[in-house]
Formats: sequence, structure tokens, C-alpha cells
Amino acid sequence: MLSNIRIVLVQTYHPGNIGQAARAMKTMGLTDLALVNPRQFPDSEASRLAAGAEDIVDAARVVTSLDAAIDDCVQVVGASARLRSLPLPHYDEPETLARTLVEHAENDPVALVFGRERFGLTNDEIRRCTHQVSIPANPDYGILNLAQAVQVLAYETFKAWRQRPESGYRPPRPRGERAPTREQLDHFHAHLSRVLADSGFLTQPHARTEAQLQALFARAQPSRKELSLLRGLLRALEPASDE
Amino acid sequence: MLSNIRIVLVQTYHPGNIGQAARAMKTMGLTDLALVNPRQFPDSEASRLAAGAEDIVDAARVVTSLDAAIDDCVQVVGASARLRSLPLPHYDEPETLARTLVEHAENDPVALVFGRERFGLTNDEIRRCTHQVSIPANPDYGILNLAQAVQVLAYETFKAWRQRPESGYRPPRPRGERAPTREQLDHFHAHLSRVLADSGFLTQPHARTEAQLQALFARAQPSRKELSLLRGLLRALEPASDE
Repeated sequence: MLSNIRIVLVQTYHPGNIGQAARAMKTMGLTDLALVNPRQFPDSEASRLAAGAEDIVDAARVVTSLDAAIDDCVQVVGASARLRSLPLPHYDEPETLARTLVEHAENDPVALVFGRERFGLTNDEIRRCTHQVSIPANPDYGILNLAQAVQVLAYETFKAWRQRPESGYRPPRPRGERAPTREQLDHFHAHLSRVLADSGFLTQPHARTEAQLQALFARAQPSRKELSLLRGLLRALEPASDE
Repeated sequence: MLSNIRIVLVQTYHPGNIGQAARAMKTMGLTDLALVNPRQFPDSEASRLAAGAEDIVDAARVVTSLDAAIDDCVQVVGASARLRSLPLPHYDEPETLARTLVEHAENDPVALVFGRERFGLTNDEIRRCTHQVSIPANPDYGILNLAQAVQVLAYETFKAWRQRPESGYRPPRPRGERAPTREQLDHFHAHLSRVLADSGFLTQPHARTEAQLQALFARAQPSRKELSLLRGLLRALEPASDE
């Protein structure tokens, strides 16, 4: 499914950007790279900066026209730093783009098209697309480096995919600590109250202070182990009982 | 408010990454950069790769301890490619992190801390943080280049800020074309039906076909200008009337 999502780079000037784009793709589960008339490719800079994503660089398809890269695609989205006054549907939010892209990619190839480092895509190239997308950015300095733009859109695409139930993606989770029972928490709070009173900190039962402390510890969400630790601390702090 | 959000880079090895990180920051409205024991800084590579964000590189604070970079912060989030088994609160989703960060940044400095290219942050450095965040990625190849990680988290941070009503952010919009009125659309559909009938395409009124075509044009959301264009096309296609 993610394999249906193609990244197309048009006339990339610096081979290093191809390598960095491949790396960005791979971190986000994308593998299909097409290069339209790259200035200098293959090139050792592309492989060097791919840093573990050389397989994607090596498998990249090199073509001589944009059409050759997108003919089989059902959706073709041109990434543009600036809005063109072309009546092409436009996504303001990469997030929204990503959701549609991923839906189409269930069944058919789709493409995200990126232009030249300095000049982006020509109006003719944008016209070959079905949609435009821009990455919302600082109005005073809004043009991302090419590989960075690939990273951001790939990140949103991977996010849209992850969030679909059928993706089966599970975030890596450290083995969870067990939470304490209500009874264990009550024992802790009773113990804490005793220590507060015995220490002279609360000379009389003070419902508000106790409630605040209970809320504080509730927010901390102590695990059972941590609660034990706190109980041990309270025992150590308890004024010595009369022997 | 965005000015309250500090990017902290710990022991960056390649000065070029500092430059690329500064560029990533600037595209997303961030300006506060702190460098903890950078291996080689200042450096022409940092300025070269900053590409228009040299002001951020030049203003970067260089310190000799992580604490010096984060002492005044109310929230300090360590970016970690892998989950540590440290009981530090952890954000699975950069989006969630960004919302909290931006809320705190309303009033106080906050920090996003990034580690070394190869080794990330040490456990001791993570312990100086209030939270951890990881960028969900390909389980087989999940480590983003340092500047790419900065770009993604900066992008989510800027997004969280934009989405707050008080930010006053307005996406750049091309001057909107006016939509046609219902009456104009009805005239168009009547015209289309006449042409379909007169051309012999529909030998009898066919409600379903007409409804499908109407729905198609509705989805295209033609502007008034485009509707005029279509009407002109229909006139040109109409079989010559008996003279």
C-alpha cells in the first residue's frame, strides 16, 4: 500500500539531495523513487547521503519526461512552495493531502512530485498534476530544502497510513508498569496523611491540602513499584514512634 | 510565542547539520537555537547550509552543559529515536507534543532537545528532560537525519501554533473565483440536456444519465468564468440549426 506511493523528483540539481530524499522516504516506509532528468545521476554523493537507503537510490527509475513518471497514477500531487494562480485543486494542509493519497494508494499508484531546488515546478508541470500542495511555513522564509520537503510530506503520509486500522501499525511500547489499585492508593494517602499530621505540618485535618496532594500524586500516575518506593520513603520520614 | 521555543542540539558532530537545522527552524518560525558543546563551531559549513537562516546560526548560544541550555524552561522534551526504559513521560505522537509545547510557550520558554547524530542523547541527558518524544517511523529503518528530525518536530510545532485562534495565521489564498448561482447552473444543465438530445446522444430524456452528468459537474465546482466557457463550448457543439 505504501509501496503504491511514488516520490518523483524533477531535474534535481544536487545528487546529495537525491540521497537525502531517499533516506527521508525510507524512514517513512516509502520505496518508489522516480527521477526526471536528474542533472547528475548516478553519483557517489547520492549514495553517500542516502546513509542506509542506498537500496532506494539504486532502484530509482530515471526517466526523461514527467509524464513517463506519472502515467499510471490515479492522483498526482505537485508540491509547490508558492501558490500558482492555476485553477488546480489545492491542499493547504499536508495532513489532508496525505489522507486522500493514502486512500487512493490502497488500490492504485499515486505520486508526490517535487521540483528543482531553485525553481520548483514549472506551470506546465503543475498542469500535469491533479492537485497542488504547499507546506504551511513562515511567510517571511517559507521555502524548505528539497529533501526536507520530502521528509515532511513523507512523514504526513506515513502518519495517515498508520492511523488507518488496516495498517496494523503498533507504536513501540516499553513493557508497561502495572498501575496500583484504588485500595493501594487509599493506603498510600492514609499513610501520607498520618505523616503530615505526625510531623506537625498539618496541625489539624486540612481537607484542601490533602486533596491537593492527592491530586498531585494522581497526575504523576505512580506505578505499583513507585508507590512502594513512596511508602518506604514515608516510613523513613515518620517521626520515631515512642519506643 | 514561537520565540519561546528553543531548539537545543547536543554535541553536534557535523557543522552542516547545524546549518540545516537552522534552516528547518526558520521555515517554521523558530529562532532560538542553543548548541551544547558542538564539535566544530562556528564553521563555514554551518553558515553555508543555513542558506538564508544564517541569522539564526549567528545568534545561536553556545554552552558547555545541557543544564545551561534548559534551566529557564518549563518543559524540556528530549527527542529520542528509541524508547528508553526510563519512566519519563513519553509522547508517541509529535502532534500531541507540539500542542502541549505551544501551550506552555504562551508564557514561558520551552525546549526541544536533540542528541548526537550517531548516539542520540545519553540516559543522563534524557533524565534532565521532562518528557521524551519519538517520531513514528519505519520499524526497519527509523532513524531520521538530525536536521530532518528538527524539521519534522518544528513543522508539527508550527502547525500547533497556526491552529490556535490567537496566532492569527492565515494561509495564503489565491483570489477566489466566484461561484455560479443556482440559476446559472440550471441554465447550464438545461443547455447541456438540449445538446445531448439534439446531438442524438440521448434519443429520449434519460434522467439517470443527466443526473450523473450534473453530479460530475457539481464535483468540479466550476467558477462563473468556467461555466461561461462551458456554455460557449456547448454553443459551438450544437448541431447547426435549420437556417
